[in-house]
Amino acid sequence: MKRLTFLLVAAATTVCLITFMASAPGQPDGQSAAPYVTEIPHGYRDWRWISSTHEAGDLNSLGAILGNDVAIEAYREGKLPFPEGTIIAALHYRNVPSEENNRVFGQAQSFVPGAPTNIQFMVKDSRRYAATGGWGFATFTDGKPADAASMKSCFPCHEKAKDTDLVFTRYAP
Amino acid sequence: MKRLTFLLVAAATTVCLITFMASAPGQPDGQSAAPYVTEIPHGYRDWRWISSTHEAGDLNSLGAILGNDVAIEAYREGKLPFPEGTIIAALHYRNVPSEENNRVFGQAQSFVPGAPTNIQFMVKDSRRYAATGGWGFATFTDGKPADAASMKSCFPCHEKAKDTDLVFTRYAP
Repeated sequence: MKRLTFLLVAAATTVCLITFMASAPGQPDGQSAAPYVTEIPHGYRDWRWISSTHEAGDLNSLGAILGNDVAIEAYREGKLPFPEGTIIAALHYRNVPSEENNRVFGQAQSFVPGAPTNIQFMVKDSRRYAATGGWGFATFTDGKPADAASMKSCFPCHEKAKDTDLVFTRYAP
Repeated sequence: MKRLTFLLVAAATTVCLITFMASAPGQPDGQSAAPYVTEIPHGYRDWRWISSTHEAGDLNSLGAILGNDVAIEAYREGKLPFPEGTIIAALHYRNVPSEENNRVFGQAQSFVPGAPTNIQFMVKDSRRYAATGGWGFATFTDGKPADAASMKSCFPCHEKAKDTDLVFTRYAP
């Protein structure tokens, strides 16, 4: 149980990010349908690269952090807090050895993204997500959003990165 | 010396890629000025993400593979060989622990890109780089191209990836 809790917290923490949630059909403007993001932002796989991530240990992940245009511009210009409309995506995969690369190297050293594990988002919408620091967080596994209970762990961890508007990832030059 | 050779081969191999080399001024069309790429392709930092890389051991690197539009389209459509004009970029950094993330995790497990080490490119130009499988390779450190001697190690390693047109990196979904 302790290990499960750790994995859940770790998964939610690494880059626990948000997703743009369009107003739910029939939802009066200004009312938040959920305290986190439940729809995958359109076109995220075409966004530009912010940085790469590697978590060792039980998580054993390798991935990338991508950002929409608002995010990239904010990072490059050092804008803090991040502007409304910023979306940051974290694509996570198993960190697996590349047998092909290792044959070339002549030793086991090369790791590549294996099976996808989850995709996480942070969406900046200060009004909708006021209760979680202005960020809506999201975790999708096989395209499905995480349940409400597990999403509660995002904000308490990200809150520790107050100096960078709750965002852990730095822009890689 | 053995370690140095290994590092050079490793650095040149991981993703030893090419760069688009515009015709040198005064160079008659059709004559290749160098057997590898000596100019950094314009705008590569805005290209889309293909995959992430992690090399353990002495290399200890973390990075990203980006591609220009021709490269991304070819990957997504499974085009092999890669079309003329394909450019693949490999951005390498030291794989360093993130103290900030580790404090949140409560243990040492999180790694992020540290100081940049080099940027490598592969540029598909079958005529210009006929002698190296149609690919021009490039390694830039602090913006400067590697010397001719070290660039000789790119093609012999990449040649081993004949089934994928000399490209080791797979597209991460």
